[in-house]
Amino acid sequence: MSDRKQFRTLESPETAREAIASLDLEPDPETVPLSDAGGRILAERVDADLDVPGFDRASVDGYAVRGRDTFGADEADPVELELVGTVHAGTEPDVEVGEGEAAEISTGAVMPEGADAVVMVERTEERHAEGAVRGVAAYTAVAPGDNVMLAGTDIAAGARALGPGTRLTPREIGLLSALGLEEVPVRGRPTVGIVSTGDELVRPGGDLRSEAGQIYDVNSYTIAAGVEEAGGEAELYPHAGDDYEEMERLLLDAAAECDLVLSSGSTSASAVDVIYRVIEERGDLLLHGVAVKPGKPMLVGELGGGAYVGLPGYPVSALTIFRTFVAPAIREAAGVPEPETATVSGRMAVRERYGEGRLRLMPAGLVNDADGDTLVYPVDKGSGATTSLVDADGVVAVDPDTEYLGEGNEVEVQLFSPDVRPPTLLAVGEPDPALSRVLDDLRSPRFLPVGSREGLRRLRGGVPDVAVVAGPTDREVESVDLGGWTREWGLVVPPENPDGIEGLGDLVDRDLAFVNRGTDSGLRSSLDAAVAELAADRDASQSALTDAIRGFGVGTKGFESPARAVARGDADAGLGLRATAESLGLGVVALGTESVRVRANPDRVGKPGVEELAAGVEAIDGVVDGLAGYGPD
Amino acid sequence: MSDRKQFRTLESPETAREAIASLDLEPDPETVPLSDAGGRILAERVDADLDVPGFDRASVDGYAVRGRDTFGADEADPVELELVGTVHAGTEPDVEVGEGEAAEISTGAVMPEGADAVVMVERTEERHAEGAVRGVAAYTAVAPGDNVMLAGTDIAAGARALGPGTRLTPREIGLLSALGLEEVPVRGRPTVGIVSTGDELVRPGGDLRSEAGQIYDVNSYTIAAGVEEAGGEAELYPHAGDDYEEMERLLLDAAAECDLVLSSGSTSASAVDVIYRVIEERGDLLLHGVAVKPGKPMLVGELGGGAYVGLPGYPVSALTIFRTFVAPAIREAAGVPEPETATVSGRMAVRERYGEGRLRLMPAGLVNDADGDTLVYPVDKGSGATTSLVDADGVVAVDPDTEYLGEGNEVEVQLFSPDVRPPTLLAVGEPDPALSRVLDDLRSPRFLPVGSREGLRRLRGGVPDVAVVAGPTDREVESVDLGGWTREWGLVVPPENPDGIEGLGDLVDRDLAFVNRGTDSGLRSSLDAAVAELAADRDASQSALTDAIRGFGVGTKGFESPARAVARGDADAGLGLRATAESLGLGVVALGTESVRVRANPDRVGKPGVEELAAGVEAIDGVVDGLAGYGPD
Repeated sequence: MSDRKQFRTLESPETAREAIASLDLEPDPETVPLSDAGGRILAERVDADLDVPGFDRASVDGYAVRGRDTFGADEADPVELELVGTVHAGTEPDVEVGEGEAAEISTGAVMPEGADAVVMVERTEERHAEGAVRGVAAYTAVAPGDNVMLAGTDIAAGARALGPGTRLTPREIGLLSALGLEEVPVRGRPTVGIVSTGDELVRPGGDLRSEAGQIYDVNSYTIAAGVEEAGGEAELYPHAGDDYEEMERLLLDAAAECDLVLSSGSTSASAVDVIYRVIEERGDLLLHGVAVKPGKPMLVGELGGGAYVGLPGYPVSALTIFRTFVAPAIREAAGVPEPETATVSGRMAVRERYGEGRLRLMPAGLVNDADGDTLVYPVDKGSGATTSLVDADGVVAVDPDTEYLGEGNEVEVQLFSPDVRPPTLLAVGEPDPALSRVLDDLRSPRFLPVGSREGLRRLRGGVPDVAVVAGPTDREVESVDLGGWTREWGLVVPPENPDGIEGLGDLVDRDLAFVNRGTDSGLRSSLDAAVAELAADRDASQSALTDAIRGFGVGTKGFESPARAVARGDADAGLGLRATAESLGLGVVALGTESVRVRANPDRVGKPGVEELAAGVEAIDGVVDGLAGYGPD
Repeated sequence: MSDRKQFRTLESPETAREAIASLDLEPDPETVPLSDAGGRILAERVDADLDVPGFDRASVDGYAVRGRDTFGADEADPVELELVGTVHAGTEPDVEVGEGEAAEISTGAVMPEGADAVVMVERTEERHAEGAVRGVAAYTAVAPGDNVMLAGTDIAAGARALGPGTRLTPREIGLLSALGLEEVPVRGRPTVGIVSTGDELVRPGGDLRSEAGQIYDVNSYTIAAGVEEAGGEAELYPHAGDDYEEMERLLLDAAAECDLVLSSGSTSASAVDVIYRVIEERGDLLLHGVAVKPGKPMLVGELGGGAYVGLPGYPVSALTIFRTFVAPAIREAAGVPEPETATVSGRMAVRERYGEGRLRLMPAGLVNDADGDTLVYPVDKGSGATTSLVDADGVVAVDPDTEYLGEGNEVEVQLFSPDVRPPTLLAVGEPDPALSRVLDDLRSPRFLPVGSREGLRRLRGGVPDVAVVAGPTDREVESVDLGGWTREWGLVVPPENPDGIEGLGDLVDRDLAFVNRGTDSGLRSSLDAAVAELAADRDASQSALTDAIRGFGVGTKGFESPARAVARGDADAGLGLRATAESLGLGVVALGTESVRVRANPDRVGKPGVEELAAGVEAIDGVVDGLAGYGPD
């Protein structure tokens, strides 16, 4: 502990980059079979070690001759040559061509000894004697080398074939095949060990105890996929607890086996503290804390002669810091340049304020306007949200001294992956099973299930292409109606309706546990309208009724959430669709039918993705077939 | 043979596309572990089957309370609550919060029964009694839901998570992890069997008998790499001879095992004829011959219920037809869209004539001008040349009725691979070992070893960035000299110079077998100058001297070719460099030192690749260190 470093201030992002660049991640080159070499990076120059073709080759069908024997030959005055044999492609000539002689030869065949040119068959005539071909007349003169592809014309032995750092695409594989290489020297792929920390994390596929606050481990698999994409090989290490001895053993094992060890923090701060201590005591901590949001708690160090980087715990933060600081170092070590498609330029679709005094890596989504130009909008669902991963397409680096980005400002988006492309459609609004089916037939739509009210608000903000709106709405937004459908809704109850619920009145009058939807939901708007109607019937205030319904005030997040609560036995009734009730094997007390409309931003009506969506909605009859309670509007 | 089809006319490319599209290549979906799912295509929609988070979660450190208990609390008038326990993240609460009670809670922990809000720790104060914490004062009111992330806020059970056809990049892997998926349903990768035909073909790594006209099999590996890139799985089948029975068995085996069988023709026409017969007799021949150059002999058919396509034999033709007609079908079957980077637009650097009456797929190279704009130039080395694979970057589809493409015309280049990028530098001219070393340090240069004379001619044509020119030159081309070096040259002879050759005169006066270089070579220009000098000395004509040198008239293709002929024992002396002689362990009779200059196209001097090259030439002293006979100019 004597050399404990003090980290009083956050380091600059540039210093963090330099610290990571100072680590040695580069593995030794390796040799792979040619058939596995596609996509790899050549480790050293390959010079040709043989001529291609390896022999002087006839490039036409005809007669191999000594060029000088044909001098002066023309249509009027052919040269007569004696036929001494035949040479086929892929066979060794068993004939020598002397003065005044010719050998029949086919394209690709080896030129026989003595011959130095080929007369095309079209310019010759066979001479017969005693019923057999004895000679040939050449009606044209050929110079030495005519119609012969000399050995080494394609590639000559000793020539530089491919340089170091060349990416091996099919064509390079072809050239290496022509040179006869069975194995190819390629850059090694750095091995990256990924250590998952946090007692609450469970591996996907494992049994999750939500009641104990457990969540699935997102970062290990996300970062592993990012490592592979950057040209590394990911190795997942088993879950580490917060015990110092166990963590030390795990990190040292990983450091010994890998070129780089990555960990990502968790909500359990103690695990991060333990890692910090292991790196300090057994390795060399180069950097702790970077002036970047997110990612302030980043660690960079060396351990057991290898490299170590600690990533933040929240998934979007972890992927952002990985993509910005770590992936470039892996690419460098692997010799893989960043693909051009890893960044795109676009204009800000909205104004956004900053001024936090440190580099901001802002999660951003992309949407194309009708002209195909890229618009960029901030995605801020709180850094803990996993869905930000798929709602955003990448990050925009905003300088510490930038106070705001204005609408229309040009920005560069560093995509989460070079394979990320802007969605063909950005839809927001009411989640709906029929909508899901329509979206399934589109190429790569994005749908944000923000509910009808919030969907309309966003449509008015001008970012999304369309909003999907269900139930009665109280706000007017300029839009183009692309069509819609209807859906039956009501109270989802257990199978056979054990409480004998007949309508909304039962929720008011009896002590039943109810689960509601949030106020952004179109279903909720329909329910509120039904409550208003009941209040009018009973000559009561709406609030008097809703206060009497146990659970009315708490809205759940998903359109199936109330029904699922009923299915779990946590509630007696929940707001939901007939279709949901049927798909979950529950009962439903129908309260009405509401309309779902797809409303487009007028500026985007001509956009291909919107046209595709409109065609899907047009064909809604087929889509809703078999969906209980659905019909055309 | 009764249903033998007649193919009297070549089909249109569109018909060929339709025939291939009519084949069923799509394999069944499969299930892969999440850790192997990166880059795959989701086969079906994934809806969330659980809430994320799966529990109501505290989003700050503080105290879990019933919100209504805090109503009216403020700095002046806190509410006093009884402390009933503590909840840590990742543990199951063992406490229930009743009226007037609070439980200490940490970020990420499960909200205990009874509590519906969290008061931030900063707005509280502990109350001690009898030396222990007994209670807490809340200095602010919280409403139900405050500082609580409700279950399902991130993703709600039942929500559409990812649509079918989604490419799984790291972020989608993250979302699937959050949902706890251990396995993922993905589109199958079509298996593509590749049948190599032609008796003269040898697998890379095998023993090549050049004297029998054997060549390495280029197409199998090139096409296999192309198949993998398009999202398929390639399977190489053993070499097939021209025997009908053997070919039939091989093709039927491949058809039974694969979704698609590809063969490529060879110079041996009989193999192609055999395949044709097998498809006709055992399958269904849909198409034979397409009006496209190259690729006229393309076959499309069905065999054993699977698909079959026959590609042309020449490597560039095979890759071109594969890329244009077959790869799109594999991508379609695999669900992988063609990457945007698979085509680039550019302007023709030169004028090019056509008018052949069929679709021309012209191999084309790319070069950037100083502004970074892409120029396109035709590459025509004869379709048999393997090096066209790496000298060209892709193909331009030229309509049958296009008579010419003018300089500056906009064209679209279909790259041989989405990973192909324009070279950073296009250099042409004299091959040279020092140049190779300089090029090794550049990012991705292209060098065409066309020789000094041809290099200068091309530089004048305006396409390349630089020409590398050795020896005396007889033409003036406007250019910027980037520097150079010198190299010693002479007659390369066997070790110890067994014939005691002392100079050029010996080649004239004695019966020695000599191997020369082609007239485009700078070395040859230096030799010609030496011959002229000797002729002057002897008062003889140059032709009298060169006629007397056996082998003077035939120029070999590579700069090492004469020396390698000497090494093989095929010649007594060869034109070459001292550096070549030493690297091959041969002797050399020095005849002089020639200058090698790097001359740049004046329009390209500001181009980054040219600047990098100039910097490399500037540092030539270090580069030539250890290269025998080399020095700075």
